[in-house]
Order: sequence, then C-alpha cells, then structure tokens
Amino acid sequence: MDAKILKVDLSKQKLSEENLSEVNCRRYLGGSALASYFLLRELEPGTPPLSPDNVLVFASSIISGVSVAGITRYTVAAKSPLTGGFGEAEAGGWWGPELRKAGYLAVVITGKADEPVYLWIKDGEAEIRSASHLWGKTTGEAENLIREELGDKNIKVAQTGPAGENLVRYACVLNNAKHANGRTGMGAVMGSKNLRGIAVRGSKKIPVNNKDKIKEIRSNFHKTWEDTSYLFYEHGTPGVVEDLNAGGILPTRNFQENTFETAEKVSGPVMTESILQEREGCYACPIRCKRVVASSGKYDIDPYYGGPEYETIGSLGTNCGVDDLEAVSKGNELCNKYGLDTISTGVSISFAMECYERGIIDSQDTDGIDLKFGNAEAMVEMVEKIARREGLGDILAEGVKRAAEEFGSEAEKYAIHVKGQELPMHEPRGKPGVSLGYGISPTGADHLEASHDPSFNDEGWALELAASLGIYEPVDTYDFGFKKVRLFSVMQKVLSFYNTIGVCNFAAWPQGPLTPQKIIELTEAVTGWNFSLYELMKIGEKTNTMARCFNVREGFTKADDMIPERLFEPLPNEPLKGKKIDQKEYMKALEEYYALEGWDDKGVPTKTKLRDLELEWIKL
Amino acid sequence: MDAKILKVDLSKQKLSEENLSEVNCRRYLGGSALASYFLLRELEPGTPPLSPDNVLVFASSIISGVSVAGITRYTVAAKSPLTGGFGEAEAGGWWGPELRKAGYLAVVITGKADEPVYLWIKDGEAEIRSASHLWGKTTGEAENLIREELGDKNIKVAQTGPAGENLVRYACVLNNAKHANGRTGMGAVMGSKNLRGIAVRGSKKIPVNNKDKIKEIRSNFHKTWEDTSYLFYEHGTPGVVEDLNAGGILPTRNFQENTFETAEKVSGPVMTESILQEREGCYACPIRCKRVVASSGKYDIDPYYGGPEYETIGSLGTNCGVDDLEAVSKGNELCNKYGLDTISTGVSISFAMECYERGIIDSQDTDGIDLKFGNAEAMVEMVEKIARREGLGDILAEGVKRAAEEFGSEAEKYAIHVKGQELPMHEPRGKPGVSLGYGISPTGADHLEASHDPSFNDEGWALELAASLGIYEPVDTYDFGFKKVRLFSVMQKVLSFYNTIGVCNFAAWPQGPLTPQKIIELTEAVTGWNFSLYELMKIGEKTNTMARCFNVREGFTKADDMIPERLFEPLPNEPLKGKKIDQKEYMKALEEYYALEGWDDKGVPTKTKLRDLELEWIKL
Repeated sequence: MDAKILKVDLSKQKLSEENLSEVNCRRYLGGSALASYFLLRELEPGTPPLSPDNVLVFASSIISGVSVAGITRYTVAAKSPLTGGFGEAEAGGWWGPELRKAGYLAVVITGKADEPVYLWIKDGEAEIRSASHLWGKTTGEAENLIREELGDKNIKVAQTGPAGENLVRYACVLNNAKHANGRTGMGAVMGSKNLRGIAVRGSKKIPVNNKDKIKEIRSNFHKTWEDTSYLFYEHGTPGVVEDLNAGGILPTRNFQENTFETAEKVSGPVMTESILQEREGCYACPIRCKRVVASSGKYDIDPYYGGPEYETIGSLGTNCGVDDLEAVSKGNELCNKYGLDTISTGVSISFAMECYERGIIDSQDTDGIDLKFGNAEAMVEMVEKIARREGLGDILAEGVKRAAEEFGSEAEKYAIHVKGQELPMHEPRGKPGVSLGYGISPTGADHLEASHDPSFNDEGWALELAASLGIYEPVDTYDFGFKKVRLFSVMQKVLSFYNTIGVCNFAAWPQGPLTPQKIIELTEAVTGWNFSLYELMKIGEKTNTMARCFNVREGFTKADDMIPERLFEPLPNEPLKGKKIDQKEYMKALEEYYALEGWDDKGVPTKTKLRDLELEWIKL
Repeated sequence: MDAKILKVDLSKQKLSEENLSEVNCRRYLGGSALASYFLLRELEPGTPPLSPDNVLVFASSIISGVSVAGITRYTVAAKSPLTGGFGEAEAGGWWGPELRKAGYLAVVITGKADEPVYLWIKDGEAEIRSASHLWGKTTGEAENLIREELGDKNIKVAQTGPAGENLVRYACVLNNAKHANGRTGMGAVMGSKNLRGIAVRGSKKIPVNNKDKIKEIRSNFHKTWEDTSYLFYEHGTPGVVEDLNAGGILPTRNFQENTFETAEKVSGPVMTESILQEREGCYACPIRCKRVVASSGKYDIDPYYGGPEYETIGSLGTNCGVDDLEAVSKGNELCNKYGLDTISTGVSISFAMECYERGIIDSQDTDGIDLKFGNAEAMVEMVEKIARREGLGDILAEGVKRAAEEFGSEAEKYAIHVKGQELPMHEPRGKPGVSLGYGISPTGADHLEASHDPSFNDEGWALELAASLGIYEPVDTYDFGFKKVRLFSVMQKVLSFYNTIGVCNFAAWPQGPLTPQKIIELTEAVTGWNFSLYELMKIGEKTNTMARCFNVREGFTKADDMIPERLFEPLPNEPLKGKKIDQKEYMKALEEYYALEGWDDKGVPTKTKLRDLELEWIKL
C-alpha cells in the first residue's frame, strides 16, 4: 500500500499530489510523525508562525477510515504561534476517517490566500473555494453554509472560527464544531493563511488485507469496552472530577490550590442528572464519551456545540474558582463557536484573575469586570472578549506568557505554562511523572504526552501488560527517581505512537480496551504488514524525536524544558498537603531522560540517535 | 511461574537451591542472560579461570523441555580460560530439556572437588558422586559407565573429556558425546574443578499455560520446516560447503585463501553418498541436521560420535588444506571423544601448519610430523597430541594467541583469533558485518553472534520480516557504513536473545521456520505472559550488554575488539579477489556501534544504559 498526499499552495492557488511510498507509509504511518516529516522537510527554521511561509499539515493515519472504534484521531500541525516551536493537536470526531475515504492520507498547506478560502475535497478531487461569506461566522454557521452550498449534509468540516481569524494565539481547529484539535494555536495558523476550513467527503472504501480480523477486533471492542470505559460513557470525562478532587490533584484557582470545595457541583454525575441532553461519540465508537448539554436557564446553551470535557470543567471551572456548571458549559459553547482552545482560554482567565486579586491589574484593565476567582459571569464574558480580542481579552489572546510580559515581572510567577503553552488540568505535584511530561513535551505542557503515574502503581496491572514493554515491577506514584524516568520514557513512546497512528487515548490502554497488541493486529489486518510492538515503540520514539528536532532547529534549549515555579511550592490542601516537585529532582530527572533517549546533555538528539531512527536527513 | 536453581559448592560438597522469582525468570529467561546474571553476581573480577573460584553455570531456558522443535539449546558459561573474559557456549541435543524435566532451570557450580566427581540430578534431587573411575575415559565410555551404574540408559550426560581433564584451553562440553558446547573452553573449567560431568534424568512435565497453542506451533513447524531447512536435513550443515566455496568465502589454509580447489570432496552431497550412516537431531526436532558417519577404511570412524558439522569440515578440512573427508571425520570423532572444540582445534593446527611452512617452526618442534597444509594424517595426529598435551600439542592446547607468543613475534600475524578465540569458518572479507560480529562478540570470534549479511540483500525478504525490526530496506552485502552497523546491532539482539531463550539458529529465522513472532507466541503459551518483540529485543540487548560488562570488569578495552590483521589484506581468489576489510571503515563501524548501543567511546556501557536495562546492580 502507498498513499496520496494533497499539497496545497494557497498563494499560487495551486493543488498537487505527492505519492508516499509503502516504505514511507510504514516509517511514518500518519498523524504526528507524518506531519513532522513534512514540517521538517518543508518548513524553514525561523519562519514566523503567522507568516505565509508556515507549513500547515492535516494528517490522518493509514488505519483511519476502517470501521473500528478508537482510531479516528487526526493531527493538525504547524509551527506554533503560541510557543514558537512544534505545534500539533489531535482530534477525534469524523473528519480524519472522511479524509481517508476521500482518498488522501494528509493535506500539506503552504502560502496564504489573498481572500478567505476553504478547501473542498471529494473522492480524490480537490478545489479551493471562496470563504468570504463565512468569515466572521461562528463555526456552526460556517459548516452549515458549506454543507448547504455543496448540497451534502454529511460533509465533514475541519475549521477554525472567529478566534482563528483574529489570530488568537491559541485558536483551535474543530470538526463538527465540537471535536477540537485544541492546542498550540493551529486555528491561528489557519487564520493567518486566510483558510477558514477544509470540507471533506469520501465514499471510497479503505482497502484492507484481512476483513475477518478487523471484524473480530471491532466485535471484541464492542464486547469489552464497558469493562474499562463505562465511566466515560456514563459521565464522560467529567466523570473524573470528584476522584481528582478527593485525591487532591484538581487544579483550583490558577493552581494555587489542589482541591475545590464545591467540586461536586461541576462533576460528571451532576451534569448527567441536570443539563445532559445526549451522549455522542466519534466515528464507529460505542463509548460515546462526548457530552451534549443544553439549557435555557441563566445561560442559553446551544447543544450544537456539545458539552464540556473534564479539561474544560477544570480550566473554565475549578481553576477559575467557578462552580457554576451552566456557566462552564456556556464558556465551552463559546470556545467551540469561536474556535478557542478551552484549556489555554481558561488558564489565561485564571491567570488574569490571580493578577486581579493580587492587584497587578485592576478594574480599569478589565473594563470594569470584577475579575475575581469564582465570578462565573466574568469568566464567560472574558471568553467572548478573548475571541474578539477586546480590551483585556486582546492581551489574554496572546497567552499567559506574553500577557505576563505585558503585566510586568511580578505577574510572571502566576503565568502557569511550559514553552508558552498553558498547563492542562492535571496537578503534577500529585503525580511527578506528569511534571516531566509537561516539561519535555515538544508542544509545551500537554496532558496527552505524559503517562499518568497512578496507573502504574498496581502490581497486577503492571505485570499484566506493562511487562511486555519491559516494565516488570510497579512504580510508585510519588517516586521521581530513575525508575519513574524510565517508565515515563517507555510510556511516552506508546503515547507518541498513539498520536501517530491516530488512536484515541480513552479507547486505548491503559485507559481503554485497545491494547498495543490489538493496535498491532489491526495495523496488520489493514496493511498486511507484519507489524510489531518493537516497531510501535521505535515509531513512537521517532515521533517524539522529530518534534524535539523541530524545536532544536527553532533554537529551543534545556531552559525551555523548565516547569512553572509554582510546582516547586508545596500543595496547600489535604490529602496531598505539602507535596511539591523537588527542583533538584526535576533537573536530575530531566538530565536522566536526555541520556536515556540518546540526547546530549543539552537535550539535543545525537547524530547516532538520528541515524538509528533513520532521521539522518534532519539537519540540526 | 518461578524456577529452581541448583547451587553446587564442590569444595564443601554442598548442594542448595535458590528460587528465581517470576519477575527474574522474565528478566533473564535462561541461557546466556541467566548465566551472565549469576557470573556477574557471584564471580569476583580477576579470578583466574582455572581456579576453584571460577563460577560455572549450566543454564537451560524457561521454554525448554516443551515438546517443540528448535528450543533445546542450553548454555554453559564461566570465565574463559581461552580468552580470560566472558566464556559461554550453547549446545542442542537432549540435555537442556532433560534438566528442565528434572526440575531445574540452571545449575551454578563453584569450588573444586578434591577428587574427580560428577553430579547426578534426578527429579528435583541432586547428589555429588565419585568420578575417579571415569577420569581419563573417552566421553562415550564415561557416559555409558554412568548410565550403567545408575541403571538408566536414558540418562543425559553433559561432560568434558580427557581434553578438559588436561586443561586444554578450548576443551568443550558435550552431551550424548556429540552435541558440543564448543567454544571458550568450558570443558577446561570443568576439568579444573575435578568435575567430569552432570548426569540428568527428569520425568516432570513442564507446566504450560496453553497446550493447544503449543500443539499448533509444533504442528506448524512440522508442516513448514522443509521450506526453509530441507538442505540441513539432506546434507546437514556440510551442505553449505560448495556454496561458500563458489561465493569465495570458504576459509582455506589458515585464511590465506578464500576458495579451496577440491572443496567438493568435503562437501555435504559427497558425505551423504559416502560415509553417512544416519541423520540425527535434537529433542523434538524433525530437521535432523546432525550427521552420523561411519567408516572402517583408512580410518576407523566410530558412529557413536556423530559426524562433522560444516564448521569442522572448514576448520579441520579446508582451512588445513585437507580434502580427505574421512580424515576430517576422524578428527571430528577424536574431538568429540576427547572433548575438544573442533573450531579452535582446527585453527590451532592450521596456524601451526602456516608457521611450519613459513619456517617459524620445524620438524623438531613437530616431533617429526610433516605439518604441511593438506597433510590429512598430520592433522589427525595433531588432534590426538592436543588432547593429550603431547609435544607441539601441548603448546597448541593453549590456543593460537598463546602459541604465537611461544613461537615468537613473527608468528603473531598468522594467529587468527579475536580476544584469544580462534575464528570460525566464515570469511568476513566476503561479508563485512561478520567482521564486526567477530570483533564485538564478548566471547571472541563467534559465528553465532553475527548476522550473515547476504540474508539481508534481498528486497522481498527484507520487507517481509526484518521490517518488524525496523529494517525497512535491504542492506547491501558489501556495505560497511552505518546502515550495516544498524542492521548488525538489530540482528545481534535477535541472536543474543536466541542464546538466552535456547532457540536453535538453524530452526530460527532467518535460517529456519521459527520466526521471532512464533518464539514470542511459544513463550506466551508456555508462561502465560504477554510477551512481545519489544521485550525480545530488550532482552537480547541485555544479554549482550551483560557479557560486555563481564569483559569490562576483567579489564578488556577497545583494543580487544580488534580483528586479525589478515582481514585487512585483500582476498586472493575470485570471485572476491581483492575484497578486504578496510581498517578505517572497521574502526568507524566499531565506534558507531558503541554509540548506537549507548556505550561510551571506549566501549563501556554507560550508567544510563545499564539502568535502562535494569542492570544498575553491575559494578563497573
């Protein structure tokens, strides 16, 4: 099998195709690795992220489009306007499989259109169309206008929204107006290129090698998913709120606290019993972890835009001290409507709240908004202002790192980010492996780049599956020595592989029923290759190494792997009162990680490592 | 599953048991890795190899004893009296499975008995018995005496012979008097401990997790072995003689030449049509690659001792310029009777022949033997003399490295060895990857430590199976750049794993039907573990790294990884006339290999690498 790549030059309005050979399909598979391959090949280091010369890649995977649950994720990647480094975000939903059915593995976009455009891809044909009438419209409006004008309500649209048009540095990409490639500002890159979206429709069957095996894997998934993933069906990702709060790892008031006194009010069960209207899922998936919420109470919440994930409840809710579930849901609706990453949006607001409470900014800066923790209305209002770049929103639209520079040096310690990207809603002081994950992640703080240590605290579990990855004994949650670094390194390869093959973290081990073995079998069944766990791990390593190389080329150094100072301060609340990341231990873990990966002591992959991974073509 | 280790202190005549936990069973599996584990743990660096303090390990594997072909190999290991470094040799046959059925995974022996003894192990019971009546007896006589006195003709005996008693530095260990743990002088270590042999008998069933799967793998092996391995059945390993000669890689006259004008006379087909009496095999194996030859012509050849392998035909035959198949077979019989490694024996004799022809030694040194290349009788006579340490034989019993020191500096360039161990019968100038294999091998030149490059020259084959090891494109036989180093490193891990799990190289990929995937399935079926190719590769790496650490502890340096100067000289004969190893390329490959393995530029595994492999307990 080989694959077609669609190449789009927006400046010249030129479309072309590149054939990806079978060997390169096997080397890069799709998603993160394939996107990195194009970025490293076609993007000049030093290119301003919002310039026409940035390269924007949409990459599905060689197994996507096959009717099996948990393999729908696709990657959007470019140089990030938020971090200035490797930008990448994955989303589930329906768009990735549709691109494959339309005959393409990936789309590589360069240049900038003179006027707003969107791309229309159908069954191996592609065209650039005007999007002037879509500009300024919400994501829901825009995708319905596209469907209408093309006369097919099943068209899948991946797009940015007004926030992307306004170059908010953490504007996201959404498909079906609710599945977000959330992080690193890929929506702003679209905006900078005058590219509103990519509409796709495909009716091609993905050729597969072994239909019966695929049927077996699908049916096995349907039979077993409830064992591991029922919580995600029942309450969605918000189902974890109360557990995290009880465990003392629920980010609260801009990471000042680790528990939230009224967490229950924004919990999964409360959502299920109140505003939940429907459960939705991704292509072919029975878990249906996506929430659809509606309300016409204090806030009018449009169910078209789904409902808040746990990350959103954390970032717009607990971390802003907000316990009003409807307000959080309204904030979520606005983020999806305008195309904003909910994590960066929420953390930008909580940062402003802390600065406001500490007197670094005042009501003049906020246009009169009383930006205190817990002020739900203020939070909702700020989401609007950020999307529109109005007043304080214009500063917060730059992200906390730049906003802190604006507010003055006193504000810097309240800007909770790594490499300029705001922290997700997992308190690393309660699981130190995650702090390393945040620090090392090539995209800046990213919860999907780190294994969440407690999974590895259990003897039975560890011996059952982790052993096949060479992890023969459980690793204590609070251990931050070499054993943890080694576990982190192993799991990072698995997770990077997931980002490449397009597997959903909730459908896959250690959360879900898709074990690495099953993913290997599935890859074999689709491609006919004799695929292996060794390859999986090598491709995971390759994925992560390519992204690291991207950042090295852009001038990133060891200093960029540092985590916010706040994480070196003790947590204030039980049950983890006093827990903190020890700075010396962190630095040691970082250095041990570099060595383990075959990187030099500055964190640069060695020539030998690049050649080992067949990446000698990357110039550092 | 856990496993029992029998510990024997010969000095104190004390037997005890150690339990190997399930986790350590999985970490070390058996064979080479398990033996290294005990050597590194229990042997003090600097111990003289022939002193009572040497530690001698016999290690079977956790899957051995299950009735499947190709998994019978077991390891004998100790500090080598030949190299002064890591000593190790594997053998097939019947002894390894029998040890497992007798309830033990391995036997670890220390000390020295006051009088000759042998060990008798039956179904979980062990005793030390007098071997005074066996001392001086041939291997055939000794094992039959043991069987008689214990009243069981099915007893399997692993033993050394008179050569081991006489401390010939390359004395071997044999089971059934013909399956040899040939290399690195493990028989001499037995001799130095006054330990003639280990007799075992077991009637226990190996507990397995999935009988049906094992049946399936067995039946698949029986159905498919002829596709890959029929030549080994038909003509045994001697079946390759003519191909190697035609390819210009048949070691001839002490590696002075690369083709032998009358190679056909010592070829497999000629053996099959003349002296072959029977085909034999190892436990549960249908390939039956072992030869049984008999003659009562010029030489009286006792079929009890089997027949010559290809390595023996090379070392006692072509490399001594001898084309008399009966003489070679007689030499083989004597080696098995006395317990001599045929490779080191043959290369020691060819070395002496070259020295004789060059006038470095003369007929006074040889007790009148006309030690010219091609003198078959002289070759046979020298085998006897080496085993008995008579005259020149006493010097050659020390191996070519020490013999050259005796003969004077002029002789040194004709001593074809690495680390003191004589080269096997594969001309590395025709497959440069093998030169790296010889140089790197922890035991000194060893053909089972190197992948034989031509297997990887074929596009279809490479994509079919090597791809699952990350080798996506064929690597040219004569390439000696990084691609070859990487291929070598990958295949070394596979081969080191084979030495640990006890898989036969002829039954296993790339020679035979047991692919890595099948071995993984088999390991799972026996143990119930969720075993993987990733683990396989990590354990292979661990195996090789442990042996390297052993040598580092003993003071070995980069200089010990050098190969004989002769390999830097051009081959004289077509079709490879002019081919040589380029010394600079070799040094570069060596350095690239070190870096690839995570070793420092002196070839010492880094602390990080040791911790990665959970070997931080090894003190370097």
